[in-house]
Amino acid sequence: MLNEARLFPAEPGVRKIAEKLYETVRDLPIVSPHGHTDPRWFAEDPAFPDPAALLIQPDHYVFRMLYSQGVKLESLGVPQVDGMQKADSREVWRIFAKHYYLFRGTPTRMWLDYTLEKQFGLTELLTEKNADTFYDTIAAKLQTPEFRPRALFEKFNIETLATTDSPLDSLEYHKAIRESGWKGRVVPTFRPDAVVDAEYADFQGNLKKLGELTGEDTSNYKGYLAALRARRRFFIEMGATATDHGHLTAMTADLGEAAASALYAKIHAGTADAKEIQLFQAQMLTELAGMSVEDGLVMQLHPGSVRNHNLGIYKKFGRDKGADIPSPTEYVRNLRPLLDKYGNEPGFTFILFTLDETTYSRELAPLAGHYPCLRLGPAWWFHDSPEGMTRFREQVTETAGFYNTVGFNDDTRAFLSIPSRHDVARRIDCAFLARLVAEHRIEEQEAFEVAQDLTINLVRKAYKL
Amino acid sequence: MLNEARLFPAEPGVRKIAEKLYETVRDLPIVSPHGHTDPRWFAEDPAFPDPAALLIQPDHYVFRMLYSQGVKLESLGVPQVDGMQKADSREVWRIFAKHYYLFRGTPTRMWLDYTLEKQFGLTELLTEKNADTFYDTIAAKLQTPEFRPRALFEKFNIETLATTDSPLDSLEYHKAIRESGWKGRVVPTFRPDAVVDAEYADFQGNLKKLGELTGEDTSNYKGYLAALRARRRFFIEMGATATDHGHLTAMTADLGEAAASALYAKIHAGTADAKEIQLFQAQMLTELAGMSVEDGLVMQLHPGSVRNHNLGIYKKFGRDKGADIPSPTEYVRNLRPLLDKYGNEPGFTFILFTLDETTYSRELAPLAGHYPCLRLGPAWWFHDSPEGMTRFREQVTETAGFYNTVGFNDDTRAFLSIPSRHDVARRIDCAFLARLVAEHRIEEQEAFEVAQDLTINLVRKAYKL
Amino acid sequence: MLNEARLFPAEPGVRKIAEKLYETVRDLPIVSPHGHTDPRWFAEDPAFPDPAALLIQPDHYVFRMLYSQGVKLESLGVPQVDGMQKADSREVWRIFAKHYYLFRGTPTRMWLDYTLEKQFGLTELLTEKNADTFYDTIAAKLQTPEFRPRALFEKFNIETLATTDSPLDSLEYHKAIRESGWKGRVVPTFRPDAVVDAEYADFQGNLKKLGELTGEDTSNYKGYLAALRARRRFFIEMGATATDHGHLTAMTADLGEAAASALYAKIHAGTADAKEIQLFQAQMLTELAGMSVEDGLVMQLHPGSVRNHNLGIYKKFGRDKGADIPSPTEYVRNLRPLLDKYGNEPGFTFILFTLDETTYSRELAPLAGHYPCLRLGPAWWFHDSPEGMTRFREQVTETAGFYNTVGFNDDTRAFLSIPSRHDVARRIDCAFLARLVAEHRIEEQEAFEVAQDLTINLVRKAYKL
Repeated sequence: MLNEARLFPAEPGVRKIAEKLYETVRDLPIVSPHGHTDPRWFAEDPAFPDPAALLIQPDHYVFRMLYSQGVKLESLGVPQVDGMQKADSREVWRIFAKHYYLFRGTPTRMWLDYTLEKQFGLTELLTEKNADTFYDTIAAKLQTPEFRPRALFEKFNIETLATTDSPLDSLEYHKAIRESGWKGRVVPTFRPDAVVDAEYADFQGNLKKLGELTGEDTSNYKGYLAALRARRRFFIEMGATATDHGHLTAMTADLGEAAASALYAKIHAGTADAKEIQLFQAQMLTELAGMSVEDGLVMQLHPGSVRNHNLGIYKKFGRDKGADIPSPTEYVRNLRPLLDKYGNEPGFTFILFTLDETTYSRELAPLAGHYPCLRLGPAWWFHDSPEGMTRFREQVTETAGFYNTVGFNDDTRAFLSIPSRHDVARRIDCAFLARLVAEHRIEEQEAFEVAQDLTINLVRKAYKL
Repeated sequence: MLNEARLFPAEPGVRKIAEKLYETVRDLPIVSPHGHTDPRWFAEDPAFPDPAALLIQPDHYVFRMLYSQGVKLESLGVPQVDGMQKADSREVWRIFAKHYYLFRGTPTRMWLDYTLEKQFGLTELLTEKNADTFYDTIAAKLQTPEFRPRALFEKFNIETLATTDSPLDSLEYHKAIRESGWKGRVVPTFRPDAVVDAEYADFQGNLKKLGELTGEDTSNYKGYLAALRARRRFFIEMGATATDHGHLTAMTADLGEAAASALYAKIHAGTADAKEIQLFQAQMLTELAGMSVEDGLVMQLHPGSVRNHNLGIYKKFGRDKGADIPSPTEYVRNLRPLLDKYGNEPGFTFILFTLDETTYSRELAPLAGHYPCLRLGPAWWFHDSPEGMTRFREQVTETAGFYNTVGFNDDTRAFLSIPSRHDVARRIDCAFLARLVAEHRIEEQEAFEVAQDLTINLVRKAYKL
Repeated sequence: MLNEARLFPAEPGVRKIAEKLYETVRDLPIVSPHGHTDPRWFAEDPAFPDPAALLIQPDHYVFRMLYSQGVKLESLGVPQVDGMQKADSREVWRIFAKHYYLFRGTPTRMWLDYTLEKQFGLTELLTEKNADTFYDTIAAKLQTPEFRPRALFEKFNIETLATTDSPLDSLEYHKAIRESGWKGRVVPTFRPDAVVDAEYADFQGNLKKLGELTGEDTSNYKGYLAALRARRRFFIEMGATATDHGHLTAMTADLGEAAASALYAKIHAGTADAKEIQLFQAQMLTELAGMSVEDGLVMQLHPGSVRNHNLGIYKKFGRDKGADIPSPTEYVRNLRPLLDKYGNEPGFTFILFTLDETTYSRELAPLAGHYPCLRLGPAWWFHDSPEGMTRFREQVTETAGFYNTVGFNDDTRAFLSIPSRHDVARRIDCAFLARLVAEHRIEEQEAFEVAQDLTINLVRKAYKL
């Protein structure tokens, strides 16, 4: 079912150029510097349980669309906060197949079609009628050695895969992977939200645990910062090259030491109000930038998602259930304190993401086209799609060029979808370059170089991999 | 003059697909669930007066463009607040013809060309030179029985036409239509702005009239809500399936009963300040959503227009004179109180519109791609145009899919333009689908299904028609 | 290297139409109503110094991109606040050539390629290897009479060139040009930021100088306004037809005379706070609009740039060093006081620009499609690029039409790049028109007319040239 020319422009001349470009990047290794796969998979190499548990229940792209059309999450067996999850896996798969038409025109459809055909050899369009055949085929394959995580990792030709981890995580699975002798490169990423965002679940407990793990006194600011530094060192030992920060806004601050210490005292005591909680996060972005200048970890910022928008769903099903909604995000004034302090530091790399596409041409490309530390992460989340990635290139390239971007992130929990996502990204980049060549805006020879750069060179360089 | 391939992509392969798709939807009936035609036309079936009164004087798309280039509204005979309207109809038509070049590249031009050719057989481009011939031809046809409203309604193959009506309206024309034996389906829409927006002209008088009409005591909140419920029942009896709400913002609120009653007391007394007036509207959106959950009326929200921006024009000519200007509109935080309360209610349908295209991919598609009650109305007003509708599909589909949208609204006062507007929408949808097929993003067979769905199935379902 | 079909759509049918349209506008004279060239060049007609001083050191588009990738501004010989500028010109050129690949996909690359080929006959792609040859060729040509400013002005077929000037400027070079007998038309533009923005360098000194130049007492509001009127008269005598205003926002105000006088007293005394400083600028936009109504000068507003974002660079290198970053800009409410007062004045022309593309379809096109005084300036600064200009036409035309726009501005300090910039603009307009023709949205004959209008007629009319 997958057409070899998919996602390339229909005009035959442009399509031909796109095909030639794609030919040279299709088989390059996958470098995945940012994502949410489970390191346990690669440490313990278990079989994936069943089709629904693999492809539906953990994928909020999938079940939110079904939910938007009246399908109950309970009927899909989406895990609940109370641990309940009763739906029959085959029944879930049938519901999914029946509603597969809802994904027409979405990237989820492209990823799933690719996965079904390339990984499972299923070349028909999924329908209510063939649902059981699909289910049986997938279920059977999942029990074979070729479908164990490490085998897939190798089949997918993954050069490096980064996970995203709490600073309180023992990184035991990463340790186990390293000690196992297996050669797959899986590295952690330092994501300190749990000890930086005072509204995080059990925040005070997290601070305490941070102190215990590091032997630092996290009841004061100095000790808290020392503890963060210690955990960063540990992550670096375990292979980390980057940090990640998920904030509601891109606000940064540069309080003096006294003010920052006093603010931390309130945060630690749990007496800070909403404004102070936000200010503390802002202050910490600048502090953490300073630590990156010291220890070389590449810094990533993912702002702008209003989390858990649907109260009813949140209460019953918890986080990450497809109810995180983007909101307008401002960078120019918000980043100024951090950039005033570290914006011109050699060796510092700060990668910005956005869910607010209006900032591409207005704020992000002008910032990245000037500051030496700034790079732009690829089109993120809702915008990680053919139209979204095309808009990113169209709106960013003319001001920031290609070389202030950092290649592709699959950013996924859905391990099976990784090759499909990189395939879509490579195709869209080739389609974009093909148009530039056809319109005589760059030379064809240059486009071949840029295609290589976008696929592997820029990501290796930006993430120091 | 109308080329059969108009609005289809130039690339021959894509155009061919678009043509095939269009062939299957071109002659489907028109379902028009939201618009501003006058029900009197269909009750009394009068002849339309003359070309200027039909095509220019009531169409703010037309005369605002002439005004922007220095043509006085007085010279066009646009009705004034004091009732004055002196311009000679033929003279108005000549001014219009002389400035017809101003509409190059606008949808108004496409609608007018279609109307002139398809309804009046005028196949030349309108110019100063042929203005009189055009005038005479149109004027003569308007006197024939074929150009009476009911005859046109039938010729246009309209399945359902919804008007937009004040809750204080007697719906006498709707009643007359139903009693006349004529089979055309014209239904009212409940638009309560006049009794919800305390800045509406004669608001206090409106509340009083609302009480009189329903026998409820609108001097207190309980009576006011009961009166609204009564009027909704009446509208439902008269065929209504939907409500509509025109607010400055998408703000909603969920005050407790005591606070809401106290706020209403101030609103009723006319002592509320600007903030309270806005809060009351926000509270009422949630109350009216609750009524929709009860009585099944589909709810529509049209926010974001700064009305009557030009003070001088407003004073002399009144409302709806082409000086309503969109402004940035926020949905994610503003809709939260309403969605917290009713967002997961089965059977509730809440259709969102926007004049702020930045919200398509950032806020509206993620919201509609999650909440079961939410659907996205089509590209609205300034964006009801080839480029605007294309942007809507490109920016909405990848996150919300096709099935969280509701087909097309012509949203017009200009009865003659209805077929032309639906024709443009059908063509643009087919052009968009053709690109997806040509780029192998959906199968051709699926595109045929989606084209049917976008043209008639989704609108019938969303509006319960 | 320059392909004759560059920037035209790849689809052969559309490309053919674009080529035919372009053929008719390619050789039209250049009307440049807004830019930043140095009038001294045309008064004294000196040779340009060397390749780096001509093409790199004054062009913030060029050196900001190099800086964003770690090249030090010092190594490029960018002039410093302390007057230092030590880099060797040839060495600077080599650094530039080595990093030329960074400009792939940017308009800078298109402008430079055009300039190198058309002005210097250099038809290869610039690389590290041919850097010296390029340098030598350019350096040699710059010493020839054909490369003096006046000769180039004539070769470029410039009909009118406007500079941008302080109200305190003696306009001595403009005077010298007029008195020289040379026939090139170079006119000043009245840009009063230095005496309107109280945060401008040496603002109080500027007010004093304004008083001295005009013999008015600028210590009170009345005298200050009289002084501005006097300078405007002087600019008009020297050929000016327009004013220009660079503000952080589009805020306007209409204070009464007493309040405005009191505010000015604080501004003059240097005791105004940040809010009052902003309010004064807002008030002055309205005052200056009133002066335009009186004296006929066309008014331009360029809002929305957060200037000198990089503190370190600003301290060492000063203004205009590629660190000005756009921010969200609001027009609908901000312009209301000014438009309430002068929006319907016959003969008043007010040209709006933006760095916030979200306002094209949401605010600017609806405003310009209604108010007779308003016109939309072309895609500005970061958006003066193939994709940016295409977005401008796609998002503006359907609501405002072509005739509420004003043709192209090159807006540049880089004299050599002027023909290349106009060439890109003409090609993109023809490409856009060709698509409309191919999609049967306008007739081909109309497209030829519009192409002429966009290239010369609209700009002559809007700027009264």
